[in-house]
Amino acid sequence: MPVPTQATLDKVLAHVDATLPQARDTLFDLLRIPSISAQPAHAADCQRAAAWWRDQLTGLGFEATVRPTAGHPVVVGHFAGPGDYTGPHILFYGHYDVQPVDPLDLWHSPPFDPQLVDGPHGKRYVARGAVDDKGQTLMFLEALRAWHSTGGGIPARITVLIEGEEEVGSVNLDPFLTANKQELAVADVALISDTGMWDVNTPAVSTRLRGMTYAEVTLKAANRDLHSGIYGGSALNPINALTKILGDLHDENGRIQLPGFYDRVVPVSNAQRAQWDSMGFDEKAFLGSIGLAHPVGERGYSALERLWARPTADINGIWGGYTGAGSKTVIASEASAKVSFRLVPNQDPGEVFEQFQRFVTERLPPDATATFAEYARAPGIEVNVDSPHVRAALDALGEEYAKPAVLMGCGGSIPVVTSLKSILGVDSLLVGFGLDDDQVHSPNEKFEEACYHHGIRSHVRLLAKFAGG
Amino acid sequence: MPVPTQATLDKVLAHVDATLPQARDTLFDLLRIPSISAQPAHAADCQRAAAWWRDQLTGLGFEATVRPTAGHPVVVGHFAGPGDYTGPHILFYGHYDVQPVDPLDLWHSPPFDPQLVDGPHGKRYVARGAVDDKGQTLMFLEALRAWHSTGGGIPARITVLIEGEEEVGSVNLDPFLTANKQELAVADVALISDTGMWDVNTPAVSTRLRGMTYAEVTLKAANRDLHSGIYGGSALNPINALTKILGDLHDENGRIQLPGFYDRVVPVSNAQRAQWDSMGFDEKAFLGSIGLAHPVGERGYSALERLWARPTADINGIWGGYTGAGSKTVIASEASAKVSFRLVPNQDPGEVFEQFQRFVTERLPPDATATFAEYARAPGIEVNVDSPHVRAALDALGEEYAKPAVLMGCGGSIPVVTSLKSILGVDSLLVGFGLDDDQVHSPNEKFEEACYHHGIRSHVRLLAKFAGG
Repeated sequence: MPVPTQATLDKVLAHVDATLPQARDTLFDLLRIPSISAQPAHAADCQRAAAWWRDQLTGLGFEATVRPTAGHPVVVGHFAGPGDYTGPHILFYGHYDVQPVDPLDLWHSPPFDPQLVDGPHGKRYVARGAVDDKGQTLMFLEALRAWHSTGGGIPARITVLIEGEEEVGSVNLDPFLTANKQELAVADVALISDTGMWDVNTPAVSTRLRGMTYAEVTLKAANRDLHSGIYGGSALNPINALTKILGDLHDENGRIQLPGFYDRVVPVSNAQRAQWDSMGFDEKAFLGSIGLAHPVGERGYSALERLWARPTADINGIWGGYTGAGSKTVIASEASAKVSFRLVPNQDPGEVFEQFQRFVTERLPPDATATFAEYARAPGIEVNVDSPHVRAALDALGEEYAKPAVLMGCGGSIPVVTSLKSILGVDSLLVGFGLDDDQVHSPNEKFEEACYHHGIRSHVRLLAKFAGG
Repeated sequence: MPVPTQATLDKVLAHVDATLPQARDTLFDLLRIPSISAQPAHAADCQRAAAWWRDQLTGLGFEATVRPTAGHPVVVGHFAGPGDYTGPHILFYGHYDVQPVDPLDLWHSPPFDPQLVDGPHGKRYVARGAVDDKGQTLMFLEALRAWHSTGGGIPARITVLIEGEEEVGSVNLDPFLTANKQELAVADVALISDTGMWDVNTPAVSTRLRGMTYAEVTLKAANRDLHSGIYGGSALNPINALTKILGDLHDENGRIQLPGFYDRVVPVSNAQRAQWDSMGFDEKAFLGSIGLAHPVGERGYSALERLWARPTADINGIWGGYTGAGSKTVIASEASAKVSFRLVPNQDPGEVFEQFQRFVTERLPPDATATFAEYARAPGIEVNVDSPHVRAALDALGEEYAKPAVLMGCGGSIPVVTSLKSILGVDSLLVGFGLDDDQVHSPNEKFEEACYHHGIRSHVRLLAKFAGG
């Protein structure tokens, strides 16, 4: 098969435009399946959603199967592509499961009865899963369909992997990837559509994800709870000690005081900083929406640097002593806290856990002991923006939107990106079309038709790029 | 009636010695009534204990009644004393209620089946309430009985007030005192037997009690819980802020950093310090029994000063964010703590509450708000050791034990002391015979017969002192 010509591409894009109502109907079909992974009552719906995906892929010429796991099944489909294909083998990852819908009474329409409603950006789709991740994944499916229906067929080598437990921590995905490594590790790049755009008119590739070290610490002192009248002034209070230690996590400039914590932190490039600065991020509005007005974090960095490219330390939970109504004059025997660090690329999560242990241990008063647990260890990820895959995505998006796509960071982690890299050795390309106001995980989740439409067209273009067009 | 002579006193003391078995039986009688004030199932037992006290007092010539309250009743008995009595009107306070007995399986004998067993100091009584407060109150009753049975009758003007809710916070006592102020405020001194000796051979008068300010603080930041990946590095974390503020409560020398906190603190006198120093308090053993080895508290003060005569700040409880199993990457919208201050005489509890509010408020980061609740406000108490009542007690105890009684402090509060002072205007005299190892509130509570016996004799002597003998 020859490399797609501009004329072929135009024909496929025209087909996308002409069949948008059908593409919408297909999405609505999937949205009607209440595939809530967290609720055992919806296990059969998860099976139905998996079968739906298998059937769609089979209909496009994929060799697709529903594969059991210890939880909800995974759908895997393979498409070999043209015999003379020399582009990258694409592993498209997504998930068919959705979040629960409560509080149900805040929905303006039933969550699994998708609605087409008017909004400031034109039509929008309202349903649970509209954007996360059914809408986002179906853009790729519809792009495949457009190539399949016209333009001479799907022009690339593709594996599709759709899981059903993303909303419940993907607990069975790593074992699945490990068990099927030979089959899946042949991919050259993973394409994931689960992130956002900068705004409705500005496409984005997410190239940075923060990693994480999540620790729990428990300080113990006396061998039992004590009366503060009898022992106060002589016996160590572990809550006093814990607040003193954790109160020391940041200095007055918001810098984290773990020795060595910043040693491996690489500053963002001047070019990256300039691009972010040019994006006009409105931190006042960002904080205003949650009732805050004053940024915290490291002094001397822009908001986007602090959110995307600087590490953080947050106490996510703390507890100890008497926490009921009224008063109890107790000196508790122990106190605990959960402390997590958002990490940037090149920081070593295990090293940070050790730095935190050392930070606490060195500050322990005599008589106190500290025990630690570690709940998460994920490195930050930075995509090489000079890679041909990122270039292809930036070009495809830039052409579709007639303006350059921006390189965004993401302050959180996307665990599957780590799994794909560590288990399969495959880098991810994050091209998403969500907007900040899409109400992900909340009532009245929505997806803009403009995003859906441009997203399908962008994937059409990206497939052409991969095929060398 | 003439002032008791030494011969009369000797006769009464001899009667105490001769009738000790009967005095023990009387105590055992009362110990068999399971008057657990906390448990509604034992309400009738509380009534029985009150009636028991009324009958005992009536038997000694008192005009005694069981008086209802919103909870368990109060017993009040009056004895006018000799017509020519010129000593102080004594208000004897005690309580007939006891703590619950669980964990029951740790008792070596049924808690309401009093046992006479051997111990290192001779016989001891084992039962719930053996010392707290049935044993302690019955020493006074038996002293009255000894005067009544011999020696020409009870030599003083006495009001007895026995409540039934001391173990549940005495919630109905203040209203009772207020409602019966005219009847009760005629007393010149309150005599309370609910404290301890220095050791089994060394009697003590407790002359200092610490007071308390008990505050709760809640810091609020964002208007909802936040995802730490999306907002970490920009949004204020109220748990981070709370630990930073409370971690600052003490300086590196253990001094409390509330501005003005020490302004009203009066150092103990050199004489008092010398007496405490001479007592050879073994802080190593004190801490060793709870698994600790290193004293905390203000540097530069002896253990007894830190425990009895210096104020403290203890975080009694702290909570916020996610405290369940595993991890949740949340930035909570609020965090709370309960913080109490043990105060010394002359500190103003209300002022300390304001100092704490100011301490927190001045350290609040922008965007945080703090709300406060106050659960306790009690001043520290210092008895004037030069008062004739304290002198009488020291003399009586010194003669009974043939060694000087010591002046002890008490690190906790005894709320009734504050109530008697603030409502009735009556100072308290704390003369108790408990030992540190009496297992108060715990399984196998005990009272040494030596303490009971010397205690009765001490009260006999004290009554003679008050009568001018």
